[in-house]
Amino acid sequence: MSVAGIGEFGLIDRVTARLTHGAAVLLGPGDDAAVLAAPDARVAASTDVLVEGRHFRRDWSSARDVGHRAAAANLADIAAMGATPTALLVALCMPADLDPAWAEELADGLAAEAGTVGASVAGGDMSASPTLTIAVTALGDLGGLAPVLRSGARPGDVVAVAGRSGYAAAGYTVLSRGFRTPKLLVEAYRRPEVPYAAGPHAARLGATAMIDVSDGLLADLGHVARASGVGIDVRRDAFEVPRQMRDAAQALGVDPYAWILGGGDDHALAATFPPAVALPAPWREVGRVADGAGVTVDGEPYAGPAGWDHFR
Amino acid sequence: MSVAGIGEFGLIDRVTARLTHGAAVLLGPGDDAAVLAAPDARVAASTDVLVEGRHFRRDWSSARDVGHRAAAANLADIAAMGATPTALLVALCMPADLDPAWAEELADGLAAEAGTVGASVAGGDMSASPTLTIAVTALGDLGGLAPVLRSGARPGDVVAVAGRSGYAAAGYTVLSRGFRTPKLLVEAYRRPEVPYAAGPHAARLGATAMIDVSDGLLADLGHVARASGVGIDVRRDAFEVPRQMRDAAQALGVDPYAWILGGGDDHALAATFPPAVALPAPWREVGRVADGAGVTVDGEPYAGPAGWDHFR
Repeated sequence: MSVAGIGEFGLIDRVTARLTHGAAVLLGPGDDAAVLAAPDARVAASTDVLVEGRHFRRDWSSARDVGHRAAAANLADIAAMGATPTALLVALCMPADLDPAWAEELADGLAAEAGTVGASVAGGDMSASPTLTIAVTALGDLGGLAPVLRSGARPGDVVAVAGRSGYAAAGYTVLSRGFRTPKLLVEAYRRPEVPYAAGPHAARLGATAMIDVSDGLLADLGHVARASGVGIDVRRDAFEVPRQMRDAAQALGVDPYAWILGGGDDHALAATFPPAVALPAPWREVGRVADGAGVTVDGEPYAGPAGWDHFR
Repeated sequence: MSVAGIGEFGLIDRVTARLTHGAAVLLGPGDDAAVLAAPDARVAASTDVLVEGRHFRRDWSSARDVGHRAAAANLADIAAMGATPTALLVALCMPADLDPAWAEELADGLAAEAGTVGASVAGGDMSASPTLTIAVTALGDLGGLAPVLRSGARPGDVVAVAGRSGYAAAGYTVLSRGFRTPKLLVEAYRRPEVPYAAGPHAARLGATAMIDVSDGLLADLGHVARASGVGIDVRRDAFEVPRQMRDAAQALGVDPYAWILGGGDDHALAATFPPAVALPAPWREVGRVADGAGVTVDGEPYAGPAGWDHFR
């Protein structure tokens, strides 16, 4: 059985039959467009694309895992504006010989990850393609608050992170060396655990800038520093190295801070807050904003790789 | 010069520098998400993907043409709900050796087509991929009206079309036989001329159902008939065959009605209206809704191809 065998409309029927819709979906799949609630008369919208062989491998991740990751990458962008995700639209390009079950399980993963924040898959498109590709657009509601931009960090602000750093990058390295454990790291790569609610919470706490950590912590803080016209210093000892990561780093001959500071794909949230704000969990302080430019670690330039360029 | 040579962030900078933003774009590219105005507290959202070799060929269409077509396919979906497009988000996957000028000219085409309705490119993502792929999400504003669904056609309604039928399909056939003329048809394939404003206008006139003709006129009217639980009969003589199309059909040994009734890609709008509605241009009556099921032509089943399956 292949997607070519059941055809475009057959596959669309099979996939949409598996989807349920959240409260924001006023009209779901099946018409020319979906209609979503945008209660505060604005909508936050972000698009992220995953390409097989570059963002995922079918021998490393199940279809359901890829769905979780594709949804998380987009939902985290919405959370990083301080918004609450409402809906996903999904363009799925797939080889004609793909098993339809793969597409169905992908949809299950997308729907399950979106469901953790009350969002759902509201529409999409499918096409055959030589390259398995998943482009997701996430929409979200700002709940009456101003969006938290990358450009608002001010000297004296505290830099804080919510969510994991380096787990997914460590899991990627483990898999790329041919191992399947430690499970903690491999699973973190397969399905990021994103503290979505920390995004709108940060907006309510008065965060001055926020970003989703997808390129790598230092690279993404670099985006904040550049947009805000400030310097950022990160303290290495603010990051705990979990035992499984320390063991894996030792076994593989890797500096675990290369994962923590340079690895993306955990989709943690990084934000800056005025120093007077008492930071509730899961936010934890990891550095400070100062006059200047660029990102330093413990006051020094960082020699390791800071992030990831999707063309290189 | 290649996209790999200038890198992901270099290319994003070059492309976004070419974009201007319409009134609905409250926050454009450069942050984790865009923020768009959704003045009536709802947003219409649709995703369509174009894959090289399947939806376009670089030797048949310029990058700018592909941008126009990719935008039009999505903007027409928004118009077919009775909504006015506000913004596009674009996921662009491209071979690492692609000339950056191709991506820049694609963006120019997307922006120019969106600009014809006051919309603009508000965000997106880029990745390397072996397969050149453009996934576009369009957002739109319903202006306080109910969305016009596929499911509202009633027996006795008039079936009407706004926009061209068969021109793009004829242009595709001409190109696939190795010709580059007639220009009217080839240009119609390269850059569809979509009567976007006819969508919201139809909603205000009381259209009972509407759809964007992308799979083929009879196939898309079939979607309306099925969703509405009615039958639709189309009159062949309602469609004028322009001279260039008649000549090309004769030269190529093709029935021009195969293009008009079965060809997609013109992104005309097809709608049903209560019989009392006086239809203003560009709407023109092409058939009637009746009790029953399926689509007939002059009262008879249609023997030719009714449309296009994107997996076959």
